This record gives sequence, structure tokens and C-alpha cells, in this order.
Amino acid sequence: MNRSRIIPVILLALCAAACAPAPFDAAAESSRLAQRDADWSSLAFEGKDIERIVAYWSDDAHVLQPGLPPIEGKTAIRDFVTASLKIPGFKIHWVSEKPVFSPDGKMAYLLSAVETTAPGATGALQSTHGRSVTVWRRDGEGVWRCVVDISNDAPPAS
Amino acid sequence: MNRSRIIPVILLALCAAACAPAPFDAAAESSRLAQRDADWSSLAFEGKDIERIVAYWSDDAHVLQPGLPPIEGKTAIRDFVTASLKIPGFKIHWVSEKPVFSPDGKMAYLLSAVETTAPGATGALQSTHGRSVTVWRRDGEGVWRCVVDISNDAPPAS
Repeated sequence: MNRSRIIPVILLALCAAACAPAPFDAAAESSRLAQRDADWSSLAFEGKDIERIVAYWSDDAHVLQPGLPPIEGKTAIRDFVTASLKIPGFKIHWVSEKPVFSPDGKMAYLLSAVETTAPGATGALQSTHGRSVTVWRRDGEGVWRCVVDISNDAPPAS
Repeated sequence: MNRSRIIPVILLALCAAACAPAPFDAAAESSRLAQRDADWSSLAFEGKDIERIVAYWSDDAHVLQPGLPPIEGKTAIRDFVTASLKIPGFKIHWVSEKPVFSPDGKMAYLLSAVETTAPGATGALQSTHGRSVTVWRRDGEGVWRCVVDISNDAPPAS
């Protein structure tokens, strides 16, 4: 094989390699995001490190809590988290289903079951069960951050 | 330029063309999905054609309404829509913000302001304002369908 034939073959091989889809190992990314979400739930449950809790949301995230005005952006979210953690007896934790990804692995959503404890109308602590949907974006450094976070109440336990 | 030089140049050009990202015209897709969502809202407001309303959700969609058990899949969603439209005076419509897409343009989410009218505790019709997040998936035929639909109540108007 002479040089004029070898070069096209090499170029085609390079082209095929370059054209391969961006690496997105679905199983690995699923574990990674699920773990990140579980870590976030643990940190929120501990309720101590506001900055670490807040860092899971993107700078432009939207948080929609039942009956509250929309909470938009990191500063408003930090204020909301700070106020929530000051409520005596406040606790939150959630458990999520498997993430669902866009085909390029750069957007995902999770459905979660959320339990929140806070003082009720009588002042006694009361647990409420809800569901949330969180939408996540993988940023340029490969870090998943929550861009939308909305929840509502589950039906009362029968 | 001899043949041994021209072929690699042609191959590189072809390679570059083949490597171009899959066509995703963000502005056009944004208009298309926004229009589809607006059409859906109009159809839901008319409240007549259950099959056309239900067709906007994917077969595996999840609908999470405040205080109701999760509604999963087309059959359960059809039953839910049918029951809602039977409520005397029931009306729903929503207006959404611009869709936000995954980089490959195959997943998107929308934030919406929703107004629902239904009989209140006294039987008189009452309008409630809420927010919803819908997650959409573009299927193999290029059709956008809603895969997740969750809403909660806005704060009472002051």
C-alpha cells in the first residue's frame, strides 16, 4: 500500500474516533447523580452546613415550594435555606428514584419522596410527606447542579 | 496539487461535515415547543377533546397533583382528565415561560403559571393560581411529549 492510500485510511480512522459521541456512560452517570442527590439529602437532613447545601443548586435555580412565592437564584435560595434551618425542630430528607437523562447525558430529572418535619398549628412537631421533581444540569466541569426544584404534598396517609 | 494530497483534504472536509452536531435549531425548536404547549393549554381550556389533550403526555408520563396519589401512565392520566372535565364549571389554562433545553435539544423543561377554576367548599366556583413544571422529551419522530407534570399552589393573592 503506498502513501497516497495509507493517509486516507488513517484519516478515516481518526475521523471515526473524533465523531464518536461525547462520552456518556449512562450507568456510571446514573450512579454518580443518584449518589450526589443522596449526599445532598444527607447534608440537608444534618442541616448544619448551609453553604454546602446551597452549592447543589445552580446560580440560576428556581425553587417552587407550595404556597410560597418563587425562590430564584442563589441569594434567595440561601436565605430560604437559612430561614428553614432556623425553624425549631425543622428536618427534611428525601429519597429519589433513578435519574432520567437526556440522550446527551447533560440534563436529567429525578422524582423524590420527601419528608419534612416542622412545628404544626399547635406547635407540636409534625411530619408531612410530599413529592418533588428536580431538574439537573451537568455543567462544563461535569458537576451536576439542580436548576429546578418543585414539590407538593402527598395525599394524607389513610 | 496531486491526487495524494487532494484526497485527504476532501476526507477532512467530509469528516468535519459528518462531525457537525445533530441539527438542533434552538430558536426554531423553542418556538415549536412553546407553540405546542400553548396549543395544549388551549385544548385543555376548551375541555372537549380528551384524546387530543391526553396525547400531549408520553405513555409513561407522571402527573403529580397536590394532595393526590401519583398518576402514572396514559390510562391513569386519561381517567384523571376525564374526571376533571366532568367537574361542573371546571376550567384550566396555563401560560409558560420559554422552554429550556438539554444541549442536544431532546429534553426540555417549562415553568408555567396555571389557573384552575372549580367549585370551592361552598359550591361556588373558585379560581386558584398555581405553578407547574413540565419536563418534555422529543421522541424519534421529533414529537415533544410531556413526561413529568407537577404543580403546586401559588401564595394567596394579597
